[in-house]
Amino acid sequence: MYNILSGLRVIEAASFVAGPSGGLYLAQMGAQVIRIDQLGGGPDFRRWPLTPAGDSLYWEGLNKGKQSVAIDLTRAEGRELAVALAAAPGDNAGLFLTNFPVAGFLSHAALAARRADIITLRIMGWADGSPALDYTVNAAVGVPDMTGPAGDTHPVNHVLPAWDLLGGAWAAFAVTAALLRRRTSGEGAEIRVPLSDLAATSLGHMGFVAEALTQGDRGRMGNDLYGAFGRDFALADGARLYVVAITPRQWRGLLAALELADGICAIEAATGADFAADEGARFTHRAALFPLFEAAFGAAVLADLAPRLDAAGVTWGPYQTLAHAVQHDARLFTGNPQFETISHPSGLTYPASGPAATLAGEARGPQQPAPRLGADTDAVLADVLGLDCGAIGRLHDAGLVA
Amino acid sequence: MYNILSGLRVIEAASFVAGPSGGLYLAQMGAQVIRIDQLGGGPDFRRWPLTPAGDSLYWEGLNKGKQSVAIDLTRAEGRELAVALAAAPGDNAGLFLTNFPVAGFLSHAALAARRADIITLRIMGWADGSPALDYTVNAAVGVPDMTGPAGDTHPVNHVLPAWDLLGGAWAAFAVTAALLRRRTSGEGAEIRVPLSDLAATSLGHMGFVAEALTQGDRGRMGNDLYGAFGRDFALADGARLYVVAITPRQWRGLLAALELADGICAIEAATGADFAADEGARFTHRAALFPLFEAAFGAAVLADLAPRLDAAGVTWGPYQTLAHAVQHDARLFTGNPQFETISHPSGLTYPASGPAATLAGEARGPQQPAPRLGADTDAVLADVLGLDCGAIGRLHDAGLVA
Repeated sequence: MYNILSGLRVIEAASFVAGPSGGLYLAQMGAQVIRIDQLGGGPDFRRWPLTPAGDSLYWEGLNKGKQSVAIDLTRAEGRELAVALAAAPGDNAGLFLTNFPVAGFLSHAALAARRADIITLRIMGWADGSPALDYTVNAAVGVPDMTGPAGDTHPVNHVLPAWDLLGGAWAAFAVTAALLRRRTSGEGAEIRVPLSDLAATSLGHMGFVAEALTQGDRGRMGNDLYGAFGRDFALADGARLYVVAITPRQWRGLLAALELADGICAIEAATGADFAADEGARFTHRAALFPLFEAAFGAAVLADLAPRLDAAGVTWGPYQTLAHAVQHDARLFTGNPQFETISHPSGLTYPASGPAATLAGEARGPQQPAPRLGADTDAVLADVLGLDCGAIGRLHDAGLVA
Repeated sequence: MYNILSGLRVIEAASFVAGPSGGLYLAQMGAQVIRIDQLGGGPDFRRWPLTPAGDSLYWEGLNKGKQSVAIDLTRAEGRELAVALAAAPGDNAGLFLTNFPVAGFLSHAALAARRADIITLRIMGWADGSPALDYTVNAAVGVPDMTGPAGDTHPVNHVLPAWDLLGGAWAAFAVTAALLRRRTSGEGAEIRVPLSDLAATSLGHMGFVAEALTQGDRGRMGNDLYGAFGRDFALADGARLYVVAITPRQWRGLLAALELADGICAIEAATGADFAADEGARFTHRAALFPLFEAAFGAAVLADLAPRLDAAGVTWGPYQTLAHAVQHDARLFTGNPQFETISHPSGLTYPASGPAATLAGEARGPQQPAPRLGADTDAVLADVLGLDCGAIGRLHDAGLVA
């Protein structure tokens, strides 16, 4: 939690990963983020993983440090409240983050009719408005057909919702960028971030699209790093490492740590390759190279090898399960200053983290839990919409808010 | 290409995916992004995929719309030029994006000594400064142990460098957020975005960390969606779809499209589950549910089924290879207004895209190719550092720039 964006007010009406993570990033950098929640919770309020009591660890992870206003969005009066909140005045307000349908009651046009300079950021599935989730977009761009062992014919979907996470960070970026412009020109913006365009443009940026158009599909290659040296290797003690060497320095360090220079020299003599100079040759000739590395890693144990790899500047990581990492890995979790153990609305106490970014030399504020649904309804209706006690009481009596 | 950030000047000294994609996002939203390139190219200048002539489709994809200043960064005079560029004056300058070592000649302290309000965004491997790449961090957080078929014992690394992509968007967000603050308070910032913290915090935000701490490892489950209904299914014509139903509406739409309501009713009667109300029951009882869906999908062909799925509002995506998608999928590529076919420095002509975000109702400017190495050296040295022809000539003569 940093206060770099303090003073900003963002209204969020969003579910699943992309929209709420965008709001989370803004909140953890200091913005006031007010969620509009459907009474009883939106479509992700019971998303797994759950606690034994049925509370969502997913929802309470993605909504940390936000405020919650619970409204009945199925009724016209409730929808009017949501529109009023999104379009409320203030130089530091008028920032709305949503995954509601592009043409619904929270359309940009409806909001801009109330506040011409509103900035609407809408996470979408397909750019044409049809529904999609991370996993369906990912199937359509072919990543599951590149993932998994060589020769396998079954697509392997990723477990990590990568396009969703990217969408959240893009949302936070685009809202902030649009605010920079608004402060200069006064203009609002309707920004649409579809998962389909996140996937298509990202694959374009990294050269996958050009490659597929000019050279066809890449094909599966297991855990081999494409175009340089990288793979998983098993050690004598059962540990498994991922090891990469892209630069000449990384390659030389790896050979030094494993004492493989002579063996590699023989392969270079036989093939004419110069593995230090040509990262691609390490990939092309990997069938010849891998047995040497398998033998060297297979004869080592992690406690001996790890310091040698580190001393040689090798880029490597241990395979470990998440349950192991969260209990034993000091750099990632147990000693990571990003994490702080706090109580959550589920009643559980466990470590929560701030933003992925560290502002070196600046105070890292305390972690904040997610709100209970509607925890801030009355305060927000009073502060943002200026409603008095009587008006708020009537909304409660009518079952419009909770 | 939009001009929402026009007027800003960002200096980038970065390689691989995360840093350059952050600069790309800023450039495609309108910032002037000047790359500082090592003479002859940095460590990713020959990164695969390559053209037949050996040019990197990866490099020219990630550096579209930027300018390039080629400098010999191995010599003190060259390093001085890089520092001077990063710390050059101007309200809209002093924004530096890098993955150079935290303690090297491009350290924040060295830059802040020249310009106290500089904003430095540094992509890192591990937060402690030790080297890591996307794939090694991913192994360490356990995602490859959750990916792939149930019962498989071999880790499956993702092909998509998801943490790198997330880091790029985070970089663009954090730079923009810090600039908003600087415009108010005058403060600079040293922002560090390590891949290790991107991975650890993201898994925390989505509930994976709390789950692993309280319930142990999730385990592999192939392509099954965790905690609701989702999987890949094969059709009679050989097509394969990914189909998801998380909300009650998605579930009911799916049953209607496949005419499965009666069969599901029988399973509900036998198990006591209410699949419409309880998304988790669809996951818990998936072994009972999947055979009905396999039979229904296995009897259908895509041409008949697709309109039925769409009419019922089902969230689904076809599996297709990327080579197929780039040639035939109008929504993703062939008819996507994000893409425009342009000539690239490799000499190849192929579609390039702008940012993942669309600013509805605003003009989408033309796509820009990547620069040739050093294409802008002289112009930038003159414009940013105010060097005259003679001074620039002497730098060329000394082999310090190209």
